Amino acid sequence: MGRRMQQYRTDLAIECREILDEQEQRQHTGRSRRRGEPDGIQMEKIEYDGGIHVTRIKIATQEAAEKMGKPIGNYITLEADGVLEEEDGIQEKAAKAVAGELGQLLHVDYSLKVLVAGLGNSLVTPDRLGPETAAKVRVTRHLFLIFDADGDEEMSNVSCIIPGVTGSTGMETAEVIKKAAEIVQPDVVIVIDSLAARDIERVSTTIQLTDTGIQPGSGMGNHRNGINEETIGAPVLAIGVPTVIDIKTILREALEENLDSAEAVETYLRDYDRQMIVTSTDIDLLVKDFSDIIAGGINKVLHPGIYS
Amino acid sequence: MGRRMQQYRTDLAIECREILDEQEQRQHTGRSRRRGEPDGIQMEKIEYDGGIHVTRIKIATQEAAEKMGKPIGNYITLEADGVLEEEDGIQEKAAKAVAGELGQLLHVDYSLKVLVAGLGNSLVTPDRLGPETAAKVRVTRHLFLIFDADGDEEMSNVSCIIPGVTGSTGMETAEVIKKAAEIVQPDVVIVIDSLAARDIERVSTTIQLTDTGIQPGSGMGNHRNGINEETIGAPVLAIGVPTVIDIKTILREALEENLDSAEAVETYLRDYDRQMIVTSTDIDLLVKDFSDIIAGGINKVLHPGIYS
Amino acid sequence: MGRRMQQYRTDLAIECREILDEQEQRQHTGRSRRRGEPDGIQMEKIEYDGGIHVTRIKIATQEAAEKMGKPIGNYITLEADGVLEEEDGIQEKAAKAVAGELGQLLHVDYSLKVLVAGLGNSLVTPDRLGPETAAKVRVTRHLFLIFDADGDEEMSNVSCIIPGVTGSTGMETAEVIKKAAEIVQPDVVIVIDSLAARDIERVSTTIQLTDTGIQPGSGMGNHRNGINEETIGAPVLAIGVPTVIDIKTILREALEENLDSAEAVETYLRDYDRQMIVTSTDIDLLVKDFSDIIAGGINKVLHPGIYS
Amino acid sequence: MGRRMQQYRTDLAIECREILDEQEQRQHTGRSRRRGEPDGIQMEKIEYDGGIHVTRIKIATQEAAEKMGKPIGNYITLEADGVLEEEDGIQEKAAKAVAGELGQLLHVDYSLKVLVAGLGNSLVTPDRLGPETAAKVRVTRHLFLIFDADGDEEMSNVSCIIPGVTGSTGMETAEVIKKAAEIVQPDVVIVIDSLAARDIERVSTTIQLTDTGIQPGSGMGNHRNGINEETIGAPVLAIGVPTVIDIKTILREALEENLDSAEAVETYLRDYDRQMIVTSTDIDLLVKDFSDIIAGGINKVLHPGIYS
Repeated sequence: MGRRMQQYRTDLAIECREILDEQEQRQHTGRSRRRGEPDGIQMEKIEYDGGIHVTRIKIATQEAAEKMGKPIGNYITLEADGVLEEEDGIQEKAAKAVAGELGQLLHVDYSLKVLVAGLGNSLVTPDRLGPETAAKVRVTRHLFLIFDADGDEEMSNVSCIIPGVTGSTGMETAEVIKKAAEIVQPDVVIVIDSLAARDIERVSTTIQLTDTGIQPGSGMGNHRNGINEETIGAPVLAIGVPTVIDIKTILREALEENLDSAEAVETYLRDYDRQMIVTSTDIDLLVKDFSDIIAGGINKVLHPGIYS
Repeated sequence: MGRRMQQYRTDLAIECREILDEQEQRQHTGRSRRRGEPDGIQMEKIEYDGGIHVTRIKIATQEAAEKMGKPIGNYITLEADGVLEEEDGIQEKAAKAVAGELGQLLHVDYSLKVLVAGLGNSLVTPDRLGPETAAKVRVTRHLFLIFDADGDEEMSNVSCIIPGVTGSTGMETAEVIKKAAEIVQPDVVIVIDSLAARDIERVSTTIQLTDTGIQPGSGMGNHRNGINEETIGAPVLAIGVPTVIDIKTILREALEENLDSAEAVETYLRDYDRQMIVTSTDIDLLVKDFSDIIAGGINKVLHPGIYS
Repeated sequence: MGRRMQQYRTDLAIECREILDEQEQRQHTGRSRRRGEPDGIQMEKIEYDGGIHVTRIKIATQEAAEKMGKPIGNYITLEADGVLEEEDGIQEKAAKAVAGELGQLLHVDYSLKVLVAGLGNSLVTPDRLGPETAAKVRVTRHLFLIFDADGDEEMSNVSCIIPGVTGSTGMETAEVIKKAAEIVQPDVVIVIDSLAARDIERVSTTIQLTDTGIQPGSGMGNHRNGINEETIGAPVLAIGVPTVIDIKTILREALEENLDSAEAVETYLRDYDRQMIVTSTDIDLLVKDFSDIIAGGINKVLHPGIYS
Repeated sequence: MGRRMQQYRTDLAIECREILDEQEQRQHTGRSRRRGEPDGIQMEKIEYDGGIHVTRIKIATQEAAEKMGKPIGNYITLEADGVLEEEDGIQEKAAKAVAGELGQLLHVDYSLKVLVAGLGNSLVTPDRLGPETAAKVRVTRHLFLIFDADGDEEMSNVSCIIPGVTGSTGMETAEVIKKAAEIVQPDVVIVIDSLAARDIERVSTTIQLTDTGIQPGSGMGNHRNGINEETIGAPVLAIGVPTVIDIKTILREALEENLDSAEAVETYLRDYDRQMIVTSTDIDLLVKDFSDIIAGGINKVLHPGIYS
């Protein structure tokens, strides 16, 4: 079952959920289909002001995790149309929705000590989302250090690291973040990263929040080690935006539509070894707008006294 | 005949030439194949120091131009391996080869008045080649203006424009370059642009020089108007590096290998309308290295007194 | 009289006005001072929401122009504290104030055809204000061209040019803008530039709008030719933010405070020929914030249907 | 004696040495001056190909260290004219000189494990030298990890960190480098930083190498904690280029030339509290060229098999 999940490469839980349905449909053609969610998976949909649709998926059991190909935890998907067209305050509204959902995952009580990590290669446009977002988050730890304080009701204690990519640093991303966390001793680490989606349409509309961190081999940069509580030593929230599609996903779609033999498709793709980046033609604008939205959301949650 | 040329999107004359051969091969299977070049096409191969292979293709007749899907003129392809690995002075050697070939196209006598135009979107990595190269070319026109001179044996009179992309300027690229040429009154315009190739392997090895300018609809930015002597009012040399591949080229290859019906392939591709950028995973390094090489070659030819 | 104006280098009309007062004070010590504005100068102060102080200076006569060392025209100064601290929506409020004042200078009726020009060197932080602001303005001309329209009530027809600096282009800034205006045929050109102030305090608080364009030798880049209706062929509004101080201004202040002989000060400064950039230590943040504010203001005025 | 050293702010040992001479001269006017170097200071001058002058200063005793206002250790100054004019291969020659001197400080035997740290704020032009240089150094640690090796004769084991500035990270620079050193366990750390000079002429000609690391309060970024073997846990070599001048240095010079009372100068400067960046007008070109030279020198020493 989980096999198929690996075939379509996607970092989005909502797409994994859709694929489950497609599989079900194929297997049960002609028969009555199961209603509702599979065992161990909960799904809830709400809408924020501005037509921003939020889908909250909870993977509750190990069995469900295997089905979905994603660890147990919460996955929140925000979908906003019209971001690029800058429709009527859509960015501010999307930032509020990010703040709303992030606030629930973070459980900010009085104030938090947070390390923000912007993952990716700032020299490659679709991989620049993490560094660009992190650069827009308001950093305050050094100010609190002067007053020997830990944060207050208006402002959290925020530090930030842009770890770069292994090819430029010689170090594993997870290692660098772990070391920064040793300095800062954060209550929580927020990592921001570019994701891979199955469907190009998602590349201009979707933000995913999860409390499971980042899986090994996911993200555009293909982190070898996972970035999660186990490897970092503090809880890890991950915020991502799909900016690329796997070339094999595109080929699979084309071949499946045109070939009868599933085996022929698998054989061709198994041997396909060309490495490429596939991204949207307006990726520069997307990275700018989504980094504004996510940084805006983070600033609203962590520094409510300044960003209202 | 020319139909096939449009199927595989490529801006490289050398790939058009290869495709002609493939077609020939298909059509004449079993029969003895024509030797040498088709009528109206001349091809010459030489090698520069450092294992840099140069192929000079001349399209001499209108008939040959139609076959190749490219205007009458000269097309020079430089192929250098090991640029990214920075093998033993390869970049300096490649710059010398660019200078050698460019010098022949330019016919520099005493000195030239040159306008360099760096095309593309500097915010999108594979489209940044033009602006990044142009920024590395030594500009001198303002110095000569002070002395009321036009250039000398050591240094040409060079000006430079980075016209941006229509989405950011609201103006056609060709129009902006034409207006800059009205200011400068150049003997020749050198435009630098990102190209599309058919084969991903070319994306780290190849530079094309041509005296035909840039065709409408070519280049990564898909310029609507051609950039050539007719539209600009001065002879136009174009230097390009393939940095992207058309998604349909990749799909065509996969489908042709797996489908028997050529018609089915055409039908699927005709309806495929998703716009994407497909590029190399080390595109950031490629753009840096190739802009160094091309700017180095231009500086060597135009300013022999400084860059020896 | 105008002599002193040239001594303190400033591009701000409000500082020229202050210097006039200081001179008056010196000359008339002990005597009763003139009340109100000098002949030919009108001044009006208003306040926008958020504590944004606006001073509107009108230089109405040639005599007043000579006194002030600035051409006849309108000069509007916005002063906003707390921009860097991002106090409670201050940036949005400042953008509204820019929109309010700019709207009056522009006389937008139904819609306008506007060319925005971002002046300066994007590689030098304090000179990056123009290019960075221009890049944030919404460009629409190419969209209207498709529909053969000129703009509508919701959106003006906006194009944009980032002309670069003479050292990188070999061309005069005024010449490049004039050529772009020939393409676009704008109702008005808005140029954005970094300015020099006399007082470092102004470098984090002040925006100047004027309908007189840009004077030769002003701006950080020291444009040799003026950028105004005469040189460009269309009315020119200039928006500037002081980002640098002239080193001689700083030395003059120090020497005047410590030396009795005005002549000794003049002699020392006359021979001082070292070229330097003097700027604020948080210039990177200032350029980011003020480019957001000014682009925000421009977008609000020109595209009222989208940015409300 | 050491008092004067603190008056002129400079990070260059060669300027400290010059100031010692000036003091001597003032104190001993009319008397015969001491020949040669003061006790505890050794100085040696050599010249490299291309007219690159090297001054090696050794501070050998604590007493000399106090006189000079710099810790015991070696300070090497390279002076190269014509870098900006790109005279006849000057950059390649300067890179060779850097490699020559750096090689002596490093004692590369077979191969080294090196951590390169690029200090400064990449968004502020004169502070961008460190990050820009570090980005041009060839990183190899991740390659050696794959083969479980430590470096070989042709290539050293190099990793790289760009720690950012405290205002953007919330963390001390020294702390971040120390943590990176814990990951990498380097034989030596090479930090690259922008320096302050006393004399603007030095801002386009000088590179300083030292085996004493970076002092607290030095560098453009004013690091609060020193970066040296004690704080980092590995020997620290520092390479710096003067890119800024302290505003008080400029004022002091002007006032000392014009005022008779040394006390009046001190009083004025003591109360002068305006923070400003003073830099060269062609700082963008300087940072580009000097980062090329220094990275070139580092690559030549550490990777002799590739960069010859």
